[in-house]
Amino acid sequence: MHWSGVITMTTDFGHKGPFAAVMRGVILSRNPDAQVIDLAHEIPPHWPPEAGFWVSRAYPYFPPGSIHLAIVDPGVGTEREILVVEHDGHVFIAPDNGLLAPLLKRAENARIWQLDIRRLKALKLAPPSNTFHGRDIFAPVAAELAAGRLPLTSVGRAVEEWTPAWLDEPEVSAGKVTGTIVTIDAFGNLISDIEASMIQGFREPVARIAGHQIAMLTTYGRAKPGDLLALVNSFGVIEVAKAEGSAAEGLSSARGAPLVMTDGYSA
Amino acid sequence: MHWSGVITMTTDFGHKGPFAAVMRGVILSRNPDAQVIDLAHEIPPHWPPEAGFWVSRAYPYFPPGSIHLAIVDPGVGTEREILVVEHDGHVFIAPDNGLLAPLLKRAENARIWQLDIRRLKALKLAPPSNTFHGRDIFAPVAAELAAGRLPLTSVGRAVEEWTPAWLDEPEVSAGKVTGTIVTIDAFGNLISDIEASMIQGFREPVARIAGHQIAMLTTYGRAKPGDLLALVNSFGVIEVAKAEGSAAEGLSSARGAPLVMTDGYSA
Amino acid sequence: MHWSGVITMTTDFGHKGPFAAVMRGVILSRNPDAQVIDLAHEIPPHWPPEAGFWVSRAYPYFPPGSIHLAIVDPGVGTEREILVVEHDGHVFIAPDNGLLAPLLKRAENARIWQLDIRRLKALKLAPPSNTFHGRDIFAPVAAELAAGRLPLTSVGRAVEEWTPAWLDEPEVSAGKVTGTIVTIDAFGNLISDIEASMIQGFREPVARIAGHQIAMLTTYGRAKPGDLLALVNSFGVIEVAKAEGSAAEGLSSARGAPLVMTDGYSA
Repeated sequence: MHWSGVITMTTDFGHKGPFAAVMRGVILSRNPDAQVIDLAHEIPPHWPPEAGFWVSRAYPYFPPGSIHLAIVDPGVGTEREILVVEHDGHVFIAPDNGLLAPLLKRAENARIWQLDIRRLKALKLAPPSNTFHGRDIFAPVAAELAAGRLPLTSVGRAVEEWTPAWLDEPEVSAGKVTGTIVTIDAFGNLISDIEASMIQGFREPVARIAGHQIAMLTTYGRAKPGDLLALVNSFGVIEVAKAEGSAAEGLSSARGAPLVMTDGYSA
Repeated sequence: MHWSGVITMTTDFGHKGPFAAVMRGVILSRNPDAQVIDLAHEIPPHWPPEAGFWVSRAYPYFPPGSIHLAIVDPGVGTEREILVVEHDGHVFIAPDNGLLAPLLKRAENARIWQLDIRRLKALKLAPPSNTFHGRDIFAPVAAELAAGRLPLTSVGRAVEEWTPAWLDEPEVSAGKVTGTIVTIDAFGNLISDIEASMIQGFREPVARIAGHQIAMLTTYGRAKPGDLLALVNSFGVIEVAKAEGSAAEGLSSARGAPLVMTDGYSA
Repeated sequence: MHWSGVITMTTDFGHKGPFAAVMRGVILSRNPDAQVIDLAHEIPPHWPPEAGFWVSRAYPYFPPGSIHLAIVDPGVGTEREILVVEHDGHVFIAPDNGLLAPLLKRAENARIWQLDIRRLKALKLAPPSNTFHGRDIFAPVAAELAAGRLPLTSVGRAVEEWTPAWLDEPEVSAGKVTGTIVTIDAFGNLISDIEASMIQGFREPVARIAGHQIAMLTTYGRAKPGDLLALVNSFGVIEVAKAEGSAAEGLSSARGAPLVMTDGYSA
């Protein structure tokens, strides 16, 4: 592994309080050359699917050898495990609660370990708190990995099993794909887990959500302000938007809502 | 151009999702020494005037040779152009939708180019998406400029025209200036585009907004808690505030509201 | 003093506007090697106790030789002083309005100075604005300190007095401790100023707030989803939480509310 020194953080900590900053402080205390990047901290509390979605979609834009910490962790301090995954030249560390499933399902050759702090005596970790493993375990482990002082293979026991995803994969049948709204961005765009490739054969793809049938366009500016549109977004999945407005408000739709793509309109 | 390595980002992306982080990843992948700074990401969606206001007021506080990306871009993926501007030792990159007009109006000797990605084959950009030019064009161009590998003069065609501002300039007459509330900060202070110099001759400047006539003071602490005041703020423009409170709430005033400065009170 | 180059910022500036970014620009303009970290910017406007709480609890996680700027400053531009404090190998700079009292009360050997910009002519500060000392004073002073160009002892006059805290210390009696909710995190957890050590002798510690009596557990996941619990949090103080929910919403409790710990339940 050639480490880039970049460490990203994806959490549901929000921006109140110093939680992400304290993790940064712990990392820099051990590894002053690390570059710590806030990927997203406004994941809905206790909802791993959005964190897994974004980490699995965003990591390729970071330098190879980056480490991605993803912490949405309602089970912190209980018996849940922490996974360390090496895939595609990147490393991912997250609680084993389904968060990394969106990545692992597509990662044929991933190597996976269960973190075992008893094997990490050389790191001289303080006894971890029951409620902030991000600071007490994730941050120092990432700092030592990125510094090249901790071999990836020594973080714990290699495993091949992991907790499955909270959301089902999209259901694909002839002329119809049923998926889920996984996240909503600041514009109110509804972003689904339906891949562009899943509707590749459709002659006239139509998005159905909340009683609406919505045509596909290439970009927001192709619709009249205020009109709904569907599009393949910049991360390769289907998104429902309202030109110069908020689809989330207009459709009263939330995370977890179903999105159906059909080939053609129906009565 | 002597590049500082600093690249700032001003967007309407908000803090949900990894959009700004992904731009940072793209920049660091090409230029590991760049220092990427979040200037502001909570510009109201699709409202370029506030982004232009802040970029034009904030850039002098960054090292000469910095690059300022400003992305409020409802026309992304349509025919709108991207401007690259060199002014006062700094470089600005933004969609040509009026965003940079507040800067360009005051920038006599600015050099302006329309970005032309066909001239940038050496950068080996992936084909840009239709909806995220921040990641696919702005970020890699800034990274290469800051690395000194892309001469500024080769980014595209030199131009002298640009899309005008969305807001009119303040109207100045004897004893009266009419301007606009351009932005509201986290305290609820209403910040206008009226320069202190525009009321320099006033003997008794009074701010009028939402039916109130408000006296000027030097700073918040000079008013009684709960009282309204007007002042010249730290960026040299007139601001209406409520001491230890929110003027925006108290006056129910929003971006775009008119602010009138008069010399003296009226009945 | 061996400076780490790390400078943290804790403010009530929020994330609207470029205020923290401009401070970062000023710091980097003077000291390109500084590492500026956002500790927290969503302190409630004009409420120093939360800023002091977090700075005093978070600083040990940063490298020794770090500088911590804390700016919640309703008196900016009036006669209030600015304190520079050296304690435990870290430096703290804040307005003298009670903000640093939670730190200073526990800091026996702290050295304290009142900043005096008349003594800082060598820094060639521009005349400070009346409303943004973070940019005009705090940032350049921190940059010069961290660069090793400004001796700590020359920032102003050594003093031994400071403005007291806005909140009383917890009241400790036999079997009962009365404290205050100082901050609420993004999960809605209510975080108090009651130290774990204050209830160390309790056989059955019970948290009382808003008419509820709440048992203590070790971590969130030990309670049933939706149940209230109290715990010693990762910063060593008592916190009231709702498992997979928001205690703040459930209890309609806000900052400043009293929290009482008793030994055992009462009728």
